[in-house]
Amino acid sequence: MAKVKAKKNKQPIILITNDDGVTAPGIRALVEAVKGLGKIVVVAPDKPQSGMGHAITIGSPLRMQKVNVFEGVEAYSTSGTPVDCVKLAVDKVIHSKPDICLSGINHGANHSINVIYSGTMSAALEASIESIPSIGFSLLDLSIEADFTAAKKYARILVEHVLNSKQQDKHLCLNVNIPKGEENLIKGIKICRQAYAKYEEEFDERKDPHGRRYYWLTGEFINFDKGKDTDVWALTNNFVSVVPVQFDLTNHLLKTKLEKNWKF
Amino acid sequence: MAKVKAKKNKQPIILITNDDGVTAPGIRALVEAVKGLGKIVVVAPDKPQSGMGHAITIGSPLRMQKVNVFEGVEAYSTSGTPVDCVKLAVDKVIHSKPDICLSGINHGANHSINVIYSGTMSAALEASIESIPSIGFSLLDLSIEADFTAAKKYARILVEHVLNSKQQDKHLCLNVNIPKGEENLIKGIKICRQAYAKYEEEFDERKDPHGRRYYWLTGEFINFDKGKDTDVWALTNNFVSVVPVQFDLTNHLLKTKLEKNWKF
Repeated sequence: MAKVKAKKNKQPIILITNDDGVTAPGIRALVEAVKGLGKIVVVAPDKPQSGMGHAITIGSPLRMQKVNVFEGVEAYSTSGTPVDCVKLAVDKVIHSKPDICLSGINHGANHSINVIYSGTMSAALEASIESIPSIGFSLLDLSIEADFTAAKKYARILVEHVLNSKQQDKHLCLNVNIPKGEENLIKGIKICRQAYAKYEEEFDERKDPHGRRYYWLTGEFINFDKGKDTDVWALTNNFVSVVPVQFDLTNHLLKTKLEKNWKF
Repeated sequence: MAKVKAKKNKQPIILITNDDGVTAPGIRALVEAVKGLGKIVVVAPDKPQSGMGHAITIGSPLRMQKVNVFEGVEAYSTSGTPVDCVKLAVDKVIHSKPDICLSGINHGANHSINVIYSGTMSAALEASIESIPSIGFSLLDLSIEADFTAAKKYARILVEHVLNSKQQDKHLCLNVNIPKGEENLIKGIKICRQAYAKYEEEFDERKDPHGRRYYWLTGEFINFDKGKDTDVWALTNNFVSVVPVQFDLTNHLLKTKLEKNWKF
């Protein structure tokens, strides 16, 4: 594989975080995947933070402590959300902006609308807001014993590709999902758009031992998008999906329409 | 003001939520602002949930109870996030999709990048994912004693406008911010794009009584965007800002660029 060009003769600093917590197998796989590509610093939540979206902690203070989880890699766990981890890493650990921020590898899919709920992708997006190129990785396998072999291979390819890119978009943020299963079944990498696919929610209503109601969020995943250029299509067809994402939520088409039609 | 057209001879159902909690003055102001425009149902967090972004509760169950907070208005508080509230309202309270979902009125600005961290706007965006037109309202005044007079006036104008629109975009989602201060100083409503303005974070590092470090998130707001078509510009110039937002995070420009330049 190509060697990574060091900026200003220094090896690139690679910040790694996730939303499954610092002890999850997925983040260990990501650290292993990019070993040798730069100086790795891990700042990750001390507990699972799935579904935390872009939450930040403003009503209470944060804790952070050095942990010895990855051999030869500087690592910290924090009491915060994945987005908090990125902010803490920049301000209190690295004391500058890393060359790239990687998030994951998530245990479970983050394609289509999941990008919005995902702590993994919100951490990556936060880095991108801070002008740090970033990639979030997710494997379509929820199991704690998931096989990360293929995910690691494609993570390394993509990270090398971004680090070696001459014309870097400073707000580059990629949402990468890897199909479950054998490495040799994967057909390659596909640049995609986010599918319009979402969960049809249904709460599981139960009663506690005191007779009071409580609700578990459950839901069925439905793909409303028939396009062949989406992440869901790519994954269904055994491609690694890469969706470039952005933090500008402006609906420019609708903006133009409203400017034309809305009179007050 | 124009009367709202009832769909199928029924009055529209207006779902109201927020992120400051069901007892916040801002949600009371929003309920008062739209009284008479439809049947109002409130489902809001039982405690402040600011900065929760698009977080959902998946690791623990949710509680929900009927509360008597607004005279003559069906209302519930939940232990969940603002996004959870929207999901619970649709599945367990209204048992169908409301005609519109309103969120706020938030105590504090949600312009520019704040749209991503904001529980108020994430609730609105969640409704939009569910094909429910939605508006999030925020007043540029953090005070618990903020004057909501102008915010209420513009909230009513905009809700009537959306409910009366003939060609409704089912994914319509508006991020509305109202300047602080006297109603008569406001120059009108401006359709805008999201400014590239963000916080430069700095954590306030302290030591607890046991000598262990902890960190408070603080930050200075900086506007990097010189455009005159942004929400920050509009608000600085005493306009009510309206940014149409979307949940498709695909960076289509970058997608095209990567498709052209990236070869694996």
